[in-house]
Amino acid sequence: MTSASSSTLSTNAELGSLLEHLKATAAERDRLGGHAAAEKQLIKAAGLLTLSIPEAYGGKSEPWSVIYDLVRRIAAADSALAHVFSFHHLQIATVILYGSPAQQRQWLGATAQEGLWWGNAMNPLDQRLVAQEFADGFVVNGVKGFCSGALGSDWMTLSAIHRESKRSLYAVIPTNQSGVRILDDWDPVGQRQTDSHSVVFDSVFIPADSILKAFDAAPTDFQSLRTCFAQLVLVNLYLGIAIGACQEAREYVHTQARPWITSGVSDAVNDSHTIRRFAEMHLQVVAATALADQAAAALEQAFEKGPRISPEERGHVAVKVAEAKVLAHRASLAVSSDLFEVVGARGAKRAFGFDRFWRNARTHTLHDPLDYKLDVLGRWALQGRIPTPDLYN
Amino acid sequence: MTSASSSTLSTNAELGSLLEHLKATAAERDRLGGHAAAEKQLIKAAGLLTLSIPEAYGGKSEPWSVIYDLVRRIAAADSALAHVFSFHHLQIATVILYGSPAQQRQWLGATAQEGLWWGNAMNPLDQRLVAQEFADGFVVNGVKGFCSGALGSDWMTLSAIHRESKRSLYAVIPTNQSGVRILDDWDPVGQRQTDSHSVVFDSVFIPADSILKAFDAAPTDFQSLRTCFAQLVLVNLYLGIAIGACQEAREYVHTQARPWITSGVSDAVNDSHTIRRFAEMHLQVVAATALADQAAAALEQAFEKGPRISPEERGHVAVKVAEAKVLAHRASLAVSSDLFEVVGARGAKRAFGFDRFWRNARTHTLHDPLDYKLDVLGRWALQGRIPTPDLYN
Amino acid sequence: MTSASSSTLSTNAELGSLLEHLKATAAERDRLGGHAAAEKQLIKAAGLLTLSIPEAYGGKSEPWSVIYDLVRRIAAADSALAHVFSFHHLQIATVILYGSPAQQRQWLGATAQEGLWWGNAMNPLDQRLVAQEFADGFVVNGVKGFCSGALGSDWMTLSAIHRESKRSLYAVIPTNQSGVRILDDWDPVGQRQTDSHSVVFDSVFIPADSILKAFDAAPTDFQSLRTCFAQLVLVNLYLGIAIGACQEAREYVHTQARPWITSGVSDAVNDSHTIRRFAEMHLQVVAATALADQAAAALEQAFEKGPRISPEERGHVAVKVAEAKVLAHRASLAVSSDLFEVVGARGAKRAFGFDRFWRNARTHTLHDPLDYKLDVLGRWALQGRIPTPDLYN
Amino acid sequence: MTSASSSTLSTNAELGSLLEHLKATAAERDRLGGHAAAEKQLIKAAGLLTLSIPEAYGGKSEPWSVIYDLVRRIAAADSALAHVFSFHHLQIATVILYGSPAQQRQWLGATAQEGLWWGNAMNPLDQRLVAQEFADGFVVNGVKGFCSGALGSDWMTLSAIHRESKRSLYAVIPTNQSGVRILDDWDPVGQRQTDSHSVVFDSVFIPADSILKAFDAAPTDFQSLRTCFAQLVLVNLYLGIAIGACQEAREYVHTQARPWITSGVSDAVNDSHTIRRFAEMHLQVVAATALADQAAAALEQAFEKGPRISPEERGHVAVKVAEAKVLAHRASLAVSSDLFEVVGARGAKRAFGFDRFWRNARTHTLHDPLDYKLDVLGRWALQGRIPTPDLYN
Repeated sequence: MTSASSSTLSTNAELGSLLEHLKATAAERDRLGGHAAAEKQLIKAAGLLTLSIPEAYGGKSEPWSVIYDLVRRIAAADSALAHVFSFHHLQIATVILYGSPAQQRQWLGATAQEGLWWGNAMNPLDQRLVAQEFADGFVVNGVKGFCSGALGSDWMTLSAIHRESKRSLYAVIPTNQSGVRILDDWDPVGQRQTDSHSVVFDSVFIPADSILKAFDAAPTDFQSLRTCFAQLVLVNLYLGIAIGACQEAREYVHTQARPWITSGVSDAVNDSHTIRRFAEMHLQVVAATALADQAAAALEQAFEKGPRISPEERGHVAVKVAEAKVLAHRASLAVSSDLFEVVGARGAKRAFGFDRFWRNARTHTLHDPLDYKLDVLGRWALQGRIPTPDLYN
Repeated sequence: MTSASSSTLSTNAELGSLLEHLKATAAERDRLGGHAAAEKQLIKAAGLLTLSIPEAYGGKSEPWSVIYDLVRRIAAADSALAHVFSFHHLQIATVILYGSPAQQRQWLGATAQEGLWWGNAMNPLDQRLVAQEFADGFVVNGVKGFCSGALGSDWMTLSAIHRESKRSLYAVIPTNQSGVRILDDWDPVGQRQTDSHSVVFDSVFIPADSILKAFDAAPTDFQSLRTCFAQLVLVNLYLGIAIGACQEAREYVHTQARPWITSGVSDAVNDSHTIRRFAEMHLQVVAATALADQAAAALEQAFEKGPRISPEERGHVAVKVAEAKVLAHRASLAVSSDLFEVVGARGAKRAFGFDRFWRNARTHTLHDPLDYKLDVLGRWALQGRIPTPDLYN
Repeated sequence: MTSASSSTLSTNAELGSLLEHLKATAAERDRLGGHAAAEKQLIKAAGLLTLSIPEAYGGKSEPWSVIYDLVRRIAAADSALAHVFSFHHLQIATVILYGSPAQQRQWLGATAQEGLWWGNAMNPLDQRLVAQEFADGFVVNGVKGFCSGALGSDWMTLSAIHRESKRSLYAVIPTNQSGVRILDDWDPVGQRQTDSHSVVFDSVFIPADSILKAFDAAPTDFQSLRTCFAQLVLVNLYLGIAIGACQEAREYVHTQARPWITSGVSDAVNDSHTIRRFAEMHLQVVAATALADQAAAALEQAFEKGPRISPEERGHVAVKVAEAKVLAHRASLAVSSDLFEVVGARGAKRAFGFDRFWRNARTHTLHDPLDYKLDVLGRWALQGRIPTPDLYN
Repeated sequence: MTSASSSTLSTNAELGSLLEHLKATAAERDRLGGHAAAEKQLIKAAGLLTLSIPEAYGGKSEPWSVIYDLVRRIAAADSALAHVFSFHHLQIATVILYGSPAQQRQWLGATAQEGLWWGNAMNPLDQRLVAQEFADGFVVNGVKGFCSGALGSDWMTLSAIHRESKRSLYAVIPTNQSGVRILDDWDPVGQRQTDSHSVVFDSVFIPADSILKAFDAAPTDFQSLRTCFAQLVLVNLYLGIAIGACQEAREYVHTQARPWITSGVSDAVNDSHTIRRFAEMHLQVVAATALADQAAAALEQAFEKGPRISPEERGHVAVKVAEAKVLAHRASLAVSSDLFEVVGARGAKRAFGFDRFWRNARTHTLHDPLDYKLDVLGRWALQGRIPTPDLYN
């Protein structure tokens, strides 16, 4: 199994206490919603913001399998903060995939040295943000929804529609740039601390050297791996939720649950029905984990190979990610609901916050529809057709 | 299908506006929790408190199939209020099953004339409430948890453990009797307005003529139908939640959902995956409804037959109720989760409150474990063994 | 539950021994395949061929709910013979729905008096049978596949494509008419004794008064109930298979199964896993049964109402039948496979023939695809669209 | 994914034609049942009998991951022959685990040089074979059931109950030894050519140096890996069945299936429901494959480590095998049944033999009950308890 043991993470004492803190406060922060400034500071303090940054720029060059494994571990404690953490790294991957050496050096170097946070305004379904050519650059106006991590970030990526061509460009801006206004409109049933507010851009100027992808540039197969990186973030978030739900269930059954009156056993851990439930929850987790690890290995291999990857190689990664996504989606929902079957009636007390796993999973698994992912997999399985690189594959 | 059309309910204009009001305010009241005094007043005003009371005592003598159908309709709008409503009638059934003619006349007559609410402190798993013989009656001391509907009620049923024999007696007391104190400790993840607080009894005297079941009386087969009445309340609450989730999903898809970008259709209602999802949700509901209706018919027939029913007849009712319970349990969880697959990402907005269906279902389906209900059904199916009348069968 | 107890069937001693004989010989006849002449003779001898024929024509006028219940009971013993039996009655229903009073009198009268068997060549997907106008009637030429029950029948219905208009006509012919040749090409993995061979028609003349539906007549809503009758035959066959599989499993567990070595019980009937399996099998059966009974009641009501039924009433029947079909389809496959989990390794002995339930279900459930039935139900549930009367709805 | 590409298998031309031959003849041989002498000869001719034998004894020393991968590939074509093949290697593993260096050299050397087949009479549930001490060895008398591969083998392993101690010993005998009589009593619904007959032993003498495990020796953790080897054989057989069913379904849909009349597409491969079905079948296969590969890697690692493995290491292997077993069990049943949903009614023709996948899966998955495997996994997941080495874990 993918493991962080060989990385610098294993000796990271801050990480352990970070995870403990996140877990201990997750239920309360879920109730409150809002911005988790203190927790983001702890993540930064643990040195976790530079994991995906190449050593050449001062980062830790951790393999993505290690980062995804960490996403899971954080998500098991608090999937909202895991989202903010993983989206930070997704933007770094974006800079590596799309950025010129100079851009990488500038932004990733600064990120590593100063411990900066990245947010995003990349949501491709929202086409209200428009870029117009102006002087040596662009001016963007409009709104972008679901901008996870933008609040409290130092830099952010964005995508905007080029007014004339209707094609999209990607760029990087400092979050505190004049004309950028982050709304307070993220109030969902789950993933309540991902800060996925809308961002309003009021005549925000972007100089030409901050453009990551020109409007008239088609992504290469290598660049289109960004979608795979993003989808695999989701996979590992779902998986972390399932793992966290299992852990909470196990702890509760060991420490608080009472055996049912007709169970014939004196401890809840020996209830045969509870044992069976754990078997099924466990299987959900191990199957999804196996596919998530395969997908991470495939992605890592393609990422390392770089721009030379073929469409087939890129398609293979997308298939592995899609397979893992379906299983992780289902595992997160099944386990976070079945958790209640094993904790029983007293576990529905709001103070435990056990419903947050399901609400987090349910909110997050709506990112793009499962049914359309199955279409992609079915065409692969039946017709041998690799997924067309697009916004979600 | 069971229908209220032949009853007085069909011409009940207050009922229509009650259901509309409950639906319109359910999400907000779910967020707030607490006591729904205004809504309880509307239920009373609609004349719904006397449905189960025999005409002889001034009630409406509605068949239980009509009452259960109404439980579903209310639960589709607001399953917490449906719980309070149905538990009121469950206590009336308790008085009919256990009470002497004089007790029935006194309590049910007053209930019908004055439009009184019933609550309960009957939770059989909680054995902390103790009754001691005193003068011509009993004094009870202790605490009882999960006392749905006690707050704001006029009368309440209770069960207490007889100190010497350790066997339980049932009684009726006025809720405002001195020494009765309702705590404020019901704060669950769902079913937030059922007022299922704990109640403290501090030397509360119960005169002999308020005892419904003496501690040394074993329930007859007829009396033990109370468990079937209670379990069938749960069935119809679960079912109502599933029906309500389907309705919300349908309305949203018709009015607010956008088709997915690769769907190839211009309206979400024509998305083939959405259509398939509705087929499965619909099947969950119709199958559970069919079994719930069968169970209601069986229970009604047994109830009408009265004390002459045989153990086998009673057992048959219990089997039908158990069958319906498993399907309704599963339907409520499946539909309230799949609702999100069809509404999509924007449906996770907290203002819609779409997660309340799952939270309500999830909280309520923990009443007694599904797995043990399956044991009962398996023994029936394999061994022909009818369920032993007990606290949950 | 629908019951035959009120009908003449309950006092039918031949029926009991028929069912026993069918069950006792089903495994062996499944292995052999071929025509079950002796068993068809027993069905006739038990007086079961006239159940659906109106009393006015000398039949028993049994309600269709009774007939469908009998289909199930026969199918529990032998679903191939149940198919032959039910298709006989389906053709009688066809004559009632489409035939003139004179046609009904002639064919149904003769059927009742002489105890005749009906077969069919109606398969609407097979359009190779062509009718050409000739003198006062038609000459048909070509082939028709899947002609269940034609072999050994006295009369048969057929559908043929009118050469000029490409529209279909229905007719009745004596099976032994010159030019009719029944092939020997039915060799499937299940339902091996339904005689669903192809039939070759070599210049077979059909006089005008044997035409049931003219090529230029569109079926009325009432006539299009034929599809509902046919689909409900399938439902009850599937259900019978599930019921039969449960019965065999129960008998085996009681009489032959050994408890697993780590079960901790001395009798297989007390194995908790086996008990759980029976609970699930039982639930599959009762849910599908409830919907099948609802559908039969709806169909019966529409049939009795006659040509006055509205498209909505007809659509309601089709919806109820479709709902039942999905559940019965799934129940037959699930139960016939799970049967093996409870009988264990020694139950795989070919002499028991326990695999015949699954093979029969699997073969028969391919009649028309489940997925398209779900489309129909989804459109009903989401869009309120009643099924368009067609070949399968 | 585990791959044979690095092994000698990849250049093995006989293997390709063997697999083709097995696939082409599997349906017919399934119908006939009986001993597949010709196919066993082809397996031998392809050099596949020495794969698991150490190079030191003249074998190919292929890693077990390669052998298990080959079991899958053979099982995809013909799971009965795959069983015979894999049980041959299981006996070789038994000799390596339990045998002295001298025994290994003698038996494995001869096997490698002469291309011998191994069978078995090891079924631990059948305790009718009794060993009595005699001269310098034992005499065994009695019967053993389910002796896969014994017929046509050169050597066989056996387990017998030591008459005095009631404990079991393992031994090796030449199959043609006097007193050994193979019955003809294997006639199951699937896996029809595994030759799993009973074997009668009539005063068969076993010299002391042919004893693999003495009756008074408890298996070490290393030796008890035999159960893991055996269980992983089952896993890969199930998986091969699922893979084979997918392949057949795909080929049929591409070459023979017709789109459904209301599908709106002209080719069955573009039917959206069929695509969805393949997605689900594919996911069943990839998830089970991932876990099977993990289990093979864990087993291989433990096997290579040898007698030094700890109980925990051994337990970890058993857990991985159990996880894979549940998923493969379910995949084999689900895919082999769903195959029919995609091929449609004409695919039920017996000549295709498509039901053999399900019959093979169904027969084989009864080896030891799924429900008890789930118990083991549940105890691991909830209690952290590693499986006790026993007959099935």
